[in-house]
Amino acid sequence: MTEATRRERPGGRTARTRRAVIDATTALLSEGSPSALTVGQIAARAGVNEATVYRKWGSKDALLTDVLLTLSAERLTVADTGSLRGDLVETVGAVADFLRTPAGFALAALAATADDETSAKLRDAFWADRFDRARTIFGRAAERGELVDVEQAMLAYEALIGTLHFRILARRRELDADIAERLTDLVLDGLRRPPRD
Amino acid sequence: MTEATRRERPGGRTARTRRAVIDATTALLSEGSPSALTVGQIAARAGVNEATVYRKWGSKDALLTDVLLTLSAERLTVADTGSLRGDLVETVGAVADFLRTPAGFALAALAATADDETSAKLRDAFWADRFDRARTIFGRAAERGELVDVEQAMLAYEALIGTLHFRILARRRELDADIAERLTDLVLDGLRRPPRD
Repeated sequence: MTEATRRERPGGRTARTRRAVIDATTALLSEGSPSALTVGQIAARAGVNEATVYRKWGSKDALLTDVLLTLSAERLTVADTGSLRGDLVETVGAVADFLRTPAGFALAALAATADDETSAKLRDAFWADRFDRARTIFGRAAERGELVDVEQAMLAYEALIGTLHFRILARRRELDADIAERLTDLVLDGLRRPPRD
Repeated sequence: MTEATRRERPGGRTARTRRAVIDATTALLSEGSPSALTVGQIAARAGVNEATVYRKWGSKDALLTDVLLTLSAERLTVADTGSLRGDLVETVGAVADFLRTPAGFALAALAATADDETSAKLRDAFWADRFDRARTIFGRAAERGELVDVEQAMLAYEALIGTLHFRILARRRELDADIAERLTDLVLDGLRRPPRD
């Protein structure tokens, strides 16, 4: 277990250091690519010792993946609007907004390419958390009678998020303003139905 | 225009060299990661001069992207089964099969990360070609009256392919044997309908 994951008083010195490093990394990711970024730059911006960063996270990739995890947990809320369509549009829209930021793009690219073991663990934890949250949305929809097949809905969630990542990473195209709505309507209604008027 | 794209007699010496280099690259990609691969190794395996490879392609990334383009064009046929569902299951299934191979995985990862200008051009050409082929499928379906909104169908195609790439690259998970069928049913019927019996 690393220092970063050890239980500690909220707002304590370790928590403040962690926050400073995460904020510094986020700011630097908005200015340049993750590969160009050095732990020295991050430490200098955060006002902490470079050795402290290595002690807490072990490697630059592990730090960056932790930043992805932390920012996503903070920014990617799971909506509870009262309807499945509303929840999906809002949740997928939040992901799209995040991926449109330079830091969000950089972190998504990193999550898809970082190969070390720590990054792999953080990546698995990240996706497990995102999919758990999606299951909450689908569970509520099933209770309301809006949904029958929750497992197919989990695949739909993967398609929603996957299309956003694919668009920006593999195709290097922008996410249209209405992408969350169009994708949600696609997975809810399918192609065979005529468009609603 | 590079030598590789110049018009030439089929089966001529240039065509044979190009084929040898592409086959050697494909074989090497099945054995290791693209980043570990060198142009020297590729040239040696193909039995050509290293300088020839650089003259034809300019860079390793450009060569690898060309290999992706070529293999995909050869292996990813566009089905014409007589039904939209059949066409999509077959076409998406062929992509899944390709991405399950080590060379396919390596090339998909590369297409999502290579940043030089030549790679970007090849990537754009590749996706334009894939999406043109999808439009053919959807155009036939519209003529048969199976489909109303071809633009929404193009987004569905992006979701189908995007989910496969996302699954293997961002999540690092395997593609289930029935992934093409489940995804196709999702985008055709949507979540709101009860499962067919």
